[in-house]
Amino acid sequence: MDKVKVVMWGIGAMGGGMAKMILDKEGIEIVGAIIGHPEKANMDLGDYLGIDRKVGVLTSTDAKTVLDSVKADVCIIATDSFVKNVFPQIKMAVEHKMNVITIAEEMSYPHTIEPELSKEMDRLAKENGVTILGTGVNPGFVLDTLIIVLSAACRRVNKIRAARINDLSPFGPTVMRTQGVGTTPEEFEKGIKEGTIVGHIGFQQSIPMIADALGIEIDEVVETREPIISSVYRETPHVKVEPGMVAGCKHIAYGKKNGEVVITLEHPQQIHPHLEGVETGDYIWIEGDPNLSLSIKPETPGGIGTIAVAVNMIPHVINSEPGLKSMIDMPLPHALMADIRKYIRR
Amino acid sequence: MDKVKVVMWGIGAMGGGMAKMILDKEGIEIVGAIIGHPEKANMDLGDYLGIDRKVGVLTSTDAKTVLDSVKADVCIIATDSFVKNVFPQIKMAVEHKMNVITIAEEMSYPHTIEPELSKEMDRLAKENGVTILGTGVNPGFVLDTLIIVLSAACRRVNKIRAARINDLSPFGPTVMRTQGVGTTPEEFEKGIKEGTIVGHIGFQQSIPMIADALGIEIDEVVETREPIISSVYRETPHVKVEPGMVAGCKHIAYGKKNGEVVITLEHPQQIHPHLEGVETGDYIWIEGDPNLSLSIKPETPGGIGTIAVAVNMIPHVINSEPGLKSMIDMPLPHALMADIRKYIRR
Repeated sequence: MDKVKVVMWGIGAMGGGMAKMILDKEGIEIVGAIIGHPEKANMDLGDYLGIDRKVGVLTSTDAKTVLDSVKADVCIIATDSFVKNVFPQIKMAVEHKMNVITIAEEMSYPHTIEPELSKEMDRLAKENGVTILGTGVNPGFVLDTLIIVLSAACRRVNKIRAARINDLSPFGPTVMRTQGVGTTPEEFEKGIKEGTIVGHIGFQQSIPMIADALGIEIDEVVETREPIISSVYRETPHVKVEPGMVAGCKHIAYGKKNGEVVITLEHPQQIHPHLEGVETGDYIWIEGDPNLSLSIKPETPGGIGTIAVAVNMIPHVINSEPGLKSMIDMPLPHALMADIRKYIRR
Repeated sequence: MDKVKVVMWGIGAMGGGMAKMILDKEGIEIVGAIIGHPEKANMDLGDYLGIDRKVGVLTSTDAKTVLDSVKADVCIIATDSFVKNVFPQIKMAVEHKMNVITIAEEMSYPHTIEPELSKEMDRLAKENGVTILGTGVNPGFVLDTLIIVLSAACRRVNKIRAARINDLSPFGPTVMRTQGVGTTPEEFEKGIKEGTIVGHIGFQQSIPMIADALGIEIDEVVETREPIISSVYRETPHVKVEPGMVAGCKHIAYGKKNGEVVITLEHPQQIHPHLEGVETGDYIWIEGDPNLSLSIKPETPGGIGTIAVAVNMIPHVINSEPGLKSMIDMPLPHALMADIRKYIRR
């Protein structure tokens, strides 16, 4: 059997990590590399990634030419967070008969936010005999897939609360800005109002995904974003936070039915949480029959986790029936330790 | 759409719990009740279960007559732990065009232990257009499904270790006997040799299931069973354990490749573990990239967990393509909070 062939579309921190992970696996190869910055075009992908080997694939900013020139099983799209922005890219890949995996957060469960585009993607996928899946560590894994799977041990689920408590310290200036790290409380409020401080993208996907999987009715998803005001001095290479300034964004989402909270997902993101005694971790509490309390400590790493979940879904996406899918349609996700071809049913 | 119809075959502690769980759900009904004890035949199932309502189904020891007389989507078999003992029952249900869910531990991944019977079951299932699935809390969930799902966040998995530490105190005399609780160390050794003390059934399924899902090569599964010798007095309604006597069985299984341990599953089962400071819980440690450490505290309850996982798989089994399946072939398991018909694709 031929190696599984992948086109990478978007090769930044996440796409580059996925490319390196794929290059480390057996039975899979990268046959196309679409990037955004013209000044880095026409580089061997190995040089572009800064690894010590040639890949034999040149980077290009011309998506159509790349897709026209290769046959691939999967196109991995890591360019943007929003359905409307990745839709044209997904459409082009699908029309080239490629399955699509994207880490665009909204794509993890797109139909609640973008019902029309979702119908169109499902139609296009079926017409071209391919599958489209949005995934990642969150949304896609910690605050949805894991909760859904844990609930299988329950006869009844009354309420769900989960929290992902992480440390933003390793991230760069973009993340600091979109989480409001280093602002004053006033600047934070202004940033929230103006949409420059956004917190986490994914609650509008994770909560409906959980609700639909379990059959819990929800009539609204309400989000709150509050500044985490530091009482101590905190510093990273990219930001300094004096006491009284904002160390991060406490973003919480509530899935409600008739005004009553049924699902609560919390994602407080800040730099150096341990400086105020906050332990990082992923936590799930199910109130039901039985009650269940799960923790992953320290938390599942964000960057590596997203890279891993997306690449690990390649065989399931190739094996899937055509259509726009979500993690709840897929078989159990898992690490890939064998030749990738061993997981493919043709 | 008609309600989902279920035949219960085996209505002891587990089968009875599943029957009650089903009777509490919408859109599903029990249409047949096969039991083992003739003196309890011809009772209304509600009376048999000791619940405060009539079900309108009479218990019977005559399996063939029950299966001949009803149409059902699923037959749940909770009669035995071993493939060879449930095979004739599975065959009969399948030949009546019923999907089968069984909590027989060996059925969670039967082909490594019983390759010929497994081929035959797969053939029968496909011939009759139905699905056969073995599941439960363990094997079926804690020490296999959850580990497999957690690994999805890893780029690489080097080693897996997991432990399920539970409290046997609520269980009756049969469990005390098969776990060796209340024996002397000498009696324990003799019981292990003679096969009257067995420990956990499921390691020979869980380890190959994990290995196959991830693509990790294993060439042997080695099990050890040691007495947990109490240093304090422990007592339940069914057993008294003096210091120096056996409070339980420390059962460990190792999945090895070329003599090196790759997967370790531990299941020490004893009464009142807290009397010697042992905290109950389910624990998973993945050594890889990244390392991950998951815990569920207290542990997922054994009885309720098995009941829940088995019943919660009903829609997935009805929706599945025909054949002998395992949890790794199924979509994400989850609790069922809506009318069961909402989960069925016909």
